Amino acid sequence: METFEINILGCGSALPTYRHLPSSQIVNVRNNLFLVDCGEGTQLQIRRQQLKFSRIEHIFISHLHGDHCFGLPGLVSTFGLLGRTADLYIHGPENIEAVMQPMLSFFCQHLPYKIVFCPFKTNETTKIYENRAVEIFTIPLKHRIPCCGFLFREKPLKRHILREWTDFYQVPFSWMNRLKNGEDYQNQDGTVIPNSKLTAAADRSRSYAYCSDTAYNPNIIKEIKEVDLLYHEATFCNEDKDRATETFHSTAEEAAEIAKAAKVKKLLIGHYSARYDDEKTLLKEARDVFPQTEPASEGLTIKV
Amino acid sequence: METFEINILGCGSALPTYRHLPSSQIVNVRNNLFLVDCGEGTQLQIRRQQLKFSRIEHIFISHLHGDHCFGLPGLVSTFGLLGRTADLYIHGPENIEAVMQPMLSFFCQHLPYKIVFCPFKTNETTKIYENRAVEIFTIPLKHRIPCCGFLFREKPLKRHILREWTDFYQVPFSWMNRLKNGEDYQNQDGTVIPNSKLTAAADRSRSYAYCSDTAYNPNIIKEIKEVDLLYHEATFCNEDKDRATETFHSTAEEAAEIAKAAKVKKLLIGHYSARYDDEKTLLKEARDVFPQTEPASEGLTIKV
Repeated sequence: METFEINILGCGSALPTYRHLPSSQIVNVRNNLFLVDCGEGTQLQIRRQQLKFSRIEHIFISHLHGDHCFGLPGLVSTFGLLGRTADLYIHGPENIEAVMQPMLSFFCQHLPYKIVFCPFKTNETTKIYENRAVEIFTIPLKHRIPCCGFLFREKPLKRHILREWTDFYQVPFSWMNRLKNGEDYQNQDGTVIPNSKLTAAADRSRSYAYCSDTAYNPNIIKEIKEVDLLYHEATFCNEDKDRATETFHSTAEEAAEIAKAAKVKKLLIGHYSARYDDEKTLLKEARDVFPQTEPASEGLTIKV
Repeated sequence: METFEINILGCGSALPTYRHLPSSQIVNVRNNLFLVDCGEGTQLQIRRQQLKFSRIEHIFISHLHGDHCFGLPGLVSTFGLLGRTADLYIHGPENIEAVMQPMLSFFCQHLPYKIVFCPFKTNETTKIYENRAVEIFTIPLKHRIPCCGFLFREKPLKRHILREWTDFYQVPFSWMNRLKNGEDYQNQDGTVIPNSKLTAAADRSRSYAYCSDTAYNPNIIKEIKEVDLLYHEATFCNEDKDRATETFHSTAEEAAEIAKAAKVKKLLIGHYSARYDDEKTLLKEARDVFPQTEPASEGLTIKV
């Protein structure tokens, strides 16, 4: 299977603790690295986890709260010091350029590369990016300020060559890509060998949804239906549910309810409030509703 | 001796590495905590080193390069989340408010405390703060943009009570503070006991100078004459001296030359370029000139 994995750089909430950093993660789809949110310390975590700065071309900012974007100026500056020349695309809510550009203009003059801001509307689902490996969509969330999650849908994968049969029919190497794309093989005599004899079905396309920050919001269920992995914020325990409601965050149980209703394969919880010394209660309350729940932690790499 | 120590939070240069974070340190003078520079990750280091956020009332920013101030928005926001009510004073070059305020206004609304910007001129030595424990002066440095170091001069300390003699003369407790301040004791009969019989000399006042970032600049020697501890940037080794000159930074040897000429007691080097895997060469080149040199490192606490 080709790579599709998430590297957690930070999974705490606004107040950093000994144990957790603010929100940030790398989504790696077939070696395309996408940075999702960029809290303070993101570039330090990228270093620590030995991920490649130069592989990041697109950054997706869910919303303009500091714990999701205070790491941007430092990262932008570091890209410059590392001699980046490739354009950097920063996707975010509509005011992202107005908010970030003054600081970048002052501190990051003479960058050797170009920053392209790509604003998206936060009240509708839109495809905001695609390449050969993946399509990325916004997921409108319900927070104190405009906010979107992101859905990563892998593009259909190619069929697997059955080596013993291509050898048997002496299919030349130049044909392999056509076979992977589903074409039948025709040899020099005009004989047609059906594709199904020469290849096996492609792996299923995988999908990942990032939903942070958000109040409990059943509207997203249809958007994230049956994804392989859902990262959903789980800021509070049940006993702090009032606080969750007030601040437009979710409890771990609510995250699990969403996961269950959407029939996702696995739930990853994060964005933990600084008030808890560990994630035991959050995890228990989520697993009581949705057993296939894992807790995010800095340094975790999880396959989709 | 009362506390006078430095906690190194970060001592790398603009490009963070596995080993070093951008510039930041806490200067603790008799339990007054002063934050000097505030690179990205400063608040995370304050947490890790278990220093008290609430003790910090004054922040001193040497210059407006990102590696010396990108941690400010996060720290300001965290102070708010921690329920701070005391005013926060941010000292820095004249344009600091114009540069930082837009970001703070957007991201740090409704703070429960007030931020007071205290701009200083970077081309002259000025006393920018004093309290009962310490006086703080700017030290004009020579960098690509306006930049100042800071000199911390402990206020004179009080004399030590000689307990056996105050007991012998039956000096009442209410007199102790006057004795510490140097007054002679007069008992109820009118007999005068000279202060020198009842107290020993006060400890010597200590001083600390922070000089980063700067090209080799002999003008500072008179300002930092005989300080107990000098933190001086030492970005480059001798073999990269051209690069030091180009970028208005110092070599380790130049830092040591300054320390030697100023007859300081101890030199602490930092602001290491990311190009070196360790500080061995930097340290050797400094010690060849000034043996009382130590290398800064994250987590280091050094007494002045």
